[in-house]
Amino acid sequence: MAINVKLGELAWPEIDALLERDPVAVLPIGAFEQHGPHLPVMVDAHLVGTVAERAATRMAESGGAIAVAPVIWTGYSPHHMDFPGTVSLDDTAFSAVAGQAAQSLARHGFRRIALLNGHGGNANLLKNLVQTLRYDHGVSAVFASYWDFALRELAAWRKSEPGGIMHACEMETSLMLASRPDLVRMDAAKDHYLEKSNYLAADLLSGGPVAAAASFKELSPTGVIGAPTLASRKRGEELLEAMVAAVAAFFEEFASWPLRDCREDKK
Amino acid sequence: MAINVKLGELAWPEIDALLERDPVAVLPIGAFEQHGPHLPVMVDAHLVGTVAERAATRMAESGGAIAVAPVIWTGYSPHHMDFPGTVSLDDTAFSAVAGQAAQSLARHGFRRIALLNGHGGNANLLKNLVQTLRYDHGVSAVFASYWDFALRELAAWRKSEPGGIMHACEMETSLMLASRPDLVRMDAAKDHYLEKSNYLAADLLSGGPVAAAASFKELSPTGVIGAPTLASRKRGEELLEAMVAAVAAFFEEFASWPLRDCREDKK
Amino acid sequence: MAINVKLGELAWPEIDALLERDPVAVLPIGAFEQHGPHLPVMVDAHLVGTVAERAATRMAESGGAIAVAPVIWTGYSPHHMDFPGTVSLDDTAFSAVAGQAAQSLARHGFRRIALLNGHGGNANLLKNLVQTLRYDHGVSAVFASYWDFALRELAAWRKSEPGGIMHACEMETSLMLASRPDLVRMDAAKDHYLEKSNYLAADLLSGGPVAAAASFKELSPTGVIGAPTLASRKRGEELLEAMVAAVAAFFEEFASWPLRDCREDKK
Amino acid sequence: MAINVKLGELAWPEIDALLERDPVAVLPIGAFEQHGPHLPVMVDAHLVGTVAERAATRMAESGGAIAVAPVIWTGYSPHHMDFPGTVSLDDTAFSAVAGQAAQSLARHGFRRIALLNGHGGNANLLKNLVQTLRYDHGVSAVFASYWDFALRELAAWRKSEPGGIMHACEMETSLMLASRPDLVRMDAAKDHYLEKSNYLAADLLSGGPVAAAASFKELSPTGVIGAPTLASRKRGEELLEAMVAAVAAFFEEFASWPLRDCREDKK
Amino acid sequence: MAINVKLGELAWPEIDALLERDPVAVLPIGAFEQHGPHLPVMVDAHLVGTVAERAATRMAESGGAIAVAPVIWTGYSPHHMDFPGTVSLDDTAFSAVAGQAAQSLARHGFRRIALLNGHGGNANLLKNLVQTLRYDHGVSAVFASYWDFALRELAAWRKSEPGGIMHACEMETSLMLASRPDLVRMDAAKDHYLEKSNYLAADLLSGGPVAAAASFKELSPTGVIGAPTLASRKRGEELLEAMVAAVAAFFEEFASWPLRDCREDKK
Amino acid sequence: MAINVKLGELAWPEIDALLERDPVAVLPIGAFEQHGPHLPVMVDAHLVGTVAERAATRMAESGGAIAVAPVIWTGYSPHHMDFPGTVSLDDTAFSAVAGQAAQSLARHGFRRIALLNGHGGNANLLKNLVQTLRYDHGVSAVFASYWDFALRELAAWRKSEPGGIMHACEMETSLMLASRPDLVRMDAAKDHYLEKSNYLAADLLSGGPVAAAASFKELSPTGVIGAPTLASRKRGEELLEAMVAAVAAFFEEFASWPLRDCREDKK
Repeated sequence: MAINVKLGELAWPEIDALLERDPVAVLPIGAFEQHGPHLPVMVDAHLVGTVAERAATRMAESGGAIAVAPVIWTGYSPHHMDFPGTVSLDDTAFSAVAGQAAQSLARHGFRRIALLNGHGGNANLLKNLVQTLRYDHGVSAVFASYWDFALRELAAWRKSEPGGIMHACEMETSLMLASRPDLVRMDAAKDHYLEKSNYLAADLLSGGPVAAAASFKELSPTGVIGAPTLASRKRGEELLEAMVAAVAAFFEEFASWPLRDCREDKK
Repeated sequence: MAINVKLGELAWPEIDALLERDPVAVLPIGAFEQHGPHLPVMVDAHLVGTVAERAATRMAESGGAIAVAPVIWTGYSPHHMDFPGTVSLDDTAFSAVAGQAAQSLARHGFRRIALLNGHGGNANLLKNLVQTLRYDHGVSAVFASYWDFALRELAAWRKSEPGGIMHACEMETSLMLASRPDLVRMDAAKDHYLEKSNYLAADLLSGGPVAAAASFKELSPTGVIGAPTLASRKRGEELLEAMVAAVAAFFEEFASWPLRDCREDKK
Repeated sequence: MAINVKLGELAWPEIDALLERDPVAVLPIGAFEQHGPHLPVMVDAHLVGTVAERAATRMAESGGAIAVAPVIWTGYSPHHMDFPGTVSLDDTAFSAVAGQAAQSLARHGFRRIALLNGHGGNANLLKNLVQTLRYDHGVSAVFASYWDFALRELAAWRKSEPGGIMHACEMETSLMLASRPDLVRMDAAKDHYLEKSNYLAADLLSGGPVAAAASFKELSPTGVIGAPTLASRKRGEELLEAMVAAVAAFFEEFASWPLRDCREDKK
Repeated sequence: MAINVKLGELAWPEIDALLERDPVAVLPIGAFEQHGPHLPVMVDAHLVGTVAERAATRMAESGGAIAVAPVIWTGYSPHHMDFPGTVSLDDTAFSAVAGQAAQSLARHGFRRIALLNGHGGNANLLKNLVQTLRYDHGVSAVFASYWDFALRELAAWRKSEPGGIMHACEMETSLMLASRPDLVRMDAAKDHYLEKSNYLAADLLSGGPVAAAASFKELSPTGVIGAPTLASRKRGEELLEAMVAAVAAFFEEFASWPLRDCREDKK
Repeated sequence: MAINVKLGELAWPEIDALLERDPVAVLPIGAFEQHGPHLPVMVDAHLVGTVAERAATRMAESGGAIAVAPVIWTGYSPHHMDFPGTVSLDDTAFSAVAGQAAQSLARHGFRRIALLNGHGGNANLLKNLVQTLRYDHGVSAVFASYWDFALRELAAWRKSEPGGIMHACEMETSLMLASRPDLVRMDAAKDHYLEKSNYLAADLLSGGPVAAAASFKELSPTGVIGAPTLASRKRGEELLEAMVAAVAAFFEEFASWPLRDCREDKK
Repeated sequence: MAINVKLGELAWPEIDALLERDPVAVLPIGAFEQHGPHLPVMVDAHLVGTVAERAATRMAESGGAIAVAPVIWTGYSPHHMDFPGTVSLDDTAFSAVAGQAAQSLARHGFRRIALLNGHGGNANLLKNLVQTLRYDHGVSAVFASYWDFALRELAAWRKSEPGGIMHACEMETSLMLASRPDLVRMDAAKDHYLEKSNYLAADLLSGGPVAAAASFKELSPTGVIGAPTLASRKRGEELLEAMVAAVAAFFEEFASWPLRDCREDKK
């Protein structure tokens, strides 16, 4: 029988029993924002939930103790609000939801809480949340975006030139083709590249030293930045597998981290 | 082909097209809290999402314009925090999530926003939210708990005496048996009644004039208040159908309300 | 000599002595908002203060320990702001005033704090306040609107059809005639009924499943909803007496509630 | 017939008519805090309300347009919380109540709003409120403590040496004897002087350059600072009359101030 | 070798050692706002830093334990925002910066924290901060504006009539000539007096009972209030010396205050 | 005569004149935190101010329009609070100070505002601030940490192995030796390396996918992470020059960016 890693499908005495095993708790955090004319608005929420559940299931099947909360789908997306359908919280509310969910888990005894992110625009806030959870609330948690565990694999996998992986792009379109092909409208996909810059990022894999704020409407008429036309279902399946494997490997290691703090001093 | 009422599965140009039809937008709001030893913690989120999607689909199939957002599963449940697995926001964060989601929808042009609730503990906050959305943000929305549309049907349907319908009870257990029987552990279900009171509510259908606050741990050792052992799948299906029909009827009427305000003066 | 139940007229050593007797503390909460052309703006503050002091005096005269704070007259009335004279707090400030007053009393040792409400628009916020006082601040308090203790009496008493008791109506006008006839201008009173609705409340005694927000200016040109022309001083005196008796009965029972929590489990 | 200056006793059409005359609106702000063993906790609220209503009545009787709101009795008194009966808001809530009351009045068209203060501990917050009302909300208001209009008269009137007028002292006890003698327990009055300091204030009439924070419990075992035993009813009546006259004179002048701003430039 | 009183120039083990000596910590707080056409915008920050460091050095040279933090230059100056260059925080942010800096120092063991102010517009907020630090955070601190220690000297020193010392005036211009003559443009200085008032302050040395809020643009076309043309470098040096001496005398006394609270009761 | 780029040393008419030239405004933001036993606590504030002023002066000397505000020295450093001397704001206050300073500048007409950062712990908050300034306040600003402009130069310059550049390290010690050698105590410097990790960053130049929160006290007994013993004054001067040149180059380019938004679409 399949192991159920969905926290929401357990009754409280089952969660009580799980807590005995010092489990990893995964809190997937997505967004609800335009992803061009060819992808649905729930891409980020769907993908982070998919990666989280698959990676957790893999770990649970090897005997690991782990549970995954439902996806928090209300992300931080003010830069997408000029396109219909985007739902965005402000920074305070967004941090409060993720933070209080983590605090709730910590109160019940979860000691290994991973905030797994699926939307670039959430990252600064969630990195900061890890600080305030610790220093303002005494709760330890770690943060990562799922793609960051597989950056090398991603670089090897891509067919696009720099600029092709950013938003509703070669990567996201392929991952959606792999997991929800019914929701992808490849005929509506159209590539869009940003102008090169020495200072501002134009691709997920090559950043710049300067951060600015620009509405996607100013950057791209379709809401796409990158090369969705290069996406394929088969390559999407390969990439998804690589990401799930990398995230599962981290969950395994995280389960063994000493709890006092996340690192050991070197003499 | 089935009509898709899930807002999250539409791309932004599809949402743009839907907005031309002055659609109803439904924001289902649940909770994530203990529901006794026989039900999973996601009962409230699951049931409100189920009712919302079925009712909306019914309306859409008759040609109505309607879309349903994903369920906000992070509710207001401090009174359940003494049981493991409960995830609760504080009142400010809870109201901010639902309120900013509604504001996002309003900004895109949705003018008929229904906050459909699935957790009693959320109700005061969401009723107040309807006020602050209007007076602080200029956004019109309406609020209702799904069961409130079918109180008469519920009274006729029940087998339990007063005290039997409150939490993880005859009603919720039956509705879960109807929609997710795989997650119900009837062998673990055990009834629990509150002492009668002239002042405090002891059943969903009979309130009292006084409001107090008590942790469920003080009220019930199992987290149940009511009579889950009287639940049945068949009767659950009947009740679910009655509720879906009543909610769909409201959606239909809501779609025709004049927009200036929700009521007409009588001379 | 009359017993003084006004907390504000006691010196601190007298309050110290009262605290030895485990007294009930009553915090009356009103509003300051238009009540049509025939009633003054302080109706809600006046009536809740009157009921509170009369009921408390009755209990004190039977030997009970009780004190009444001055009325908090700054209520939550954004829906009345389109009429001159209304003074309204926003929801955060309103809850903070009542909540911090209750916290102050709790800090001094009052363990039986009753928030007695005199304005319908305050109710959701105060019900929620009872929750946050308990879960965020560890303070126990109970909430009720004074009329809710006498709903049956009210139903028997009324002469108006449904729609006649809502705001500046048969009930409030009669109660004002009974307690401050000098401030009632019966010649300016004019009835106003809302259109019937299956979903929205149109009378204090018959609610609906849906909550919406509407400025009173949209609902009634005079600010009245109900039938003030049916009011009478004599019947007002009868109703006031019924309400004072019902509230006094609750104060008596409240004084005997076990303190751990407000209810006892049933085996 | 007496002129009614109580805003709360007017119906909205009467307030509408008053607004035509560009009236002064007075918002009296007191406190609810221990005043030694011989005075009740509502001294500050009572005195500021009394001065406000008498001064306003005087102006109204000479034909001036003026109305007085009920007293805001919830002040800022954390330094008195060690004595039973004190009710105190925190600084944010206190400023919100007074500020939002002023904003409500301004929205209806009141353009001459005077915050009349009756508690020293409120003064810094209300002075700041005048700034935030103007710069954050565009509302003009002025602030003063009632005794500050009669400092010279007070200096001439006193019998106590420096240190005798501070809290529950020669001044406040005399004013209470003049207005509510039934609430004064002169047999319980006992003088208490602070040690002299070059830096810290020890009397209402002689300040120091340094501000510190000390609980009254640390400063005085009875809660008194000053010389209540020197109080007398007759002298209290004289002082109250002087203060009412001085405040009325200010109201008269305030009614004639140019509205653009409170001062004229000198070339 | 000169003693270093700058906290920022010490390494943490040096601060650790200083804490053994129960030192005074000085937190100078200025502003960044227009000071007429003849003075730079950093006048307030510069002057309070200069006085603080000179006074502290004097005390340290006599063997006292004292350290001075860098100046907080972001003050509360909304009334100067109509002139270019002014940088102002709102009241919440301003109080948070000064308050959290004081809390940080207290956490490390500093028990004698002096908030030394250099801008009149900050005073109400900082006086209140001393209260909230104590009652909300348990941190003791004292507040003073540097000129308040030398009001008598200032009265004797001035050449201007009342109205000559207010902003960018005889006093500030002289102090700048004494400490940063390179930044003073005496040829651009022009006097400006406010109209006399019985109620509003028109000079630093003579206040009034009423507080109002007015943009400096309304009060003075140049941003000056007072008589900068009467300023002189030599007299500025004399005044600066008097102020430094008076502040140093306070620091010395403050170092010896009993810590429980700032005052002793008198029997 | 040297060009003055210090905004604080200009009078308002001079700032008015500068604004005609569409200048760059630089807001340097540092921290006040332990930097091991060999460096003072004001390292971050000092270095970012030094780089900002030197780079701005270079640009001004070539005719560019630019001004530098004083350093905001109150940073976000909760992870250093276990060492004496650290002064840290919480995240809300920190963001408010920097954000409101930027809003003040924008109100006066500055349209090219650069938040130049000198403390790694501030980066997430300031990146987010750029978003909230734009989306919540309509203010455009850009963010960068000064070292990020010279990462390649830094990689070439370093002598330490990975782990040698992190905090109070080879880089910061060298830069201090170059600019304030009097404040460096090389005899107290001691190297400290973190254990290697696949997931967590152990050097400024090599990050990891996971973010956690750890007090520096847990990570290093001295507060140092890196290799300060490899620092030298001569190499520090070279590195400082490289950084100033890189920052100046950015300021020059920033002055020419189109203002509508920071990027141009590519067709």
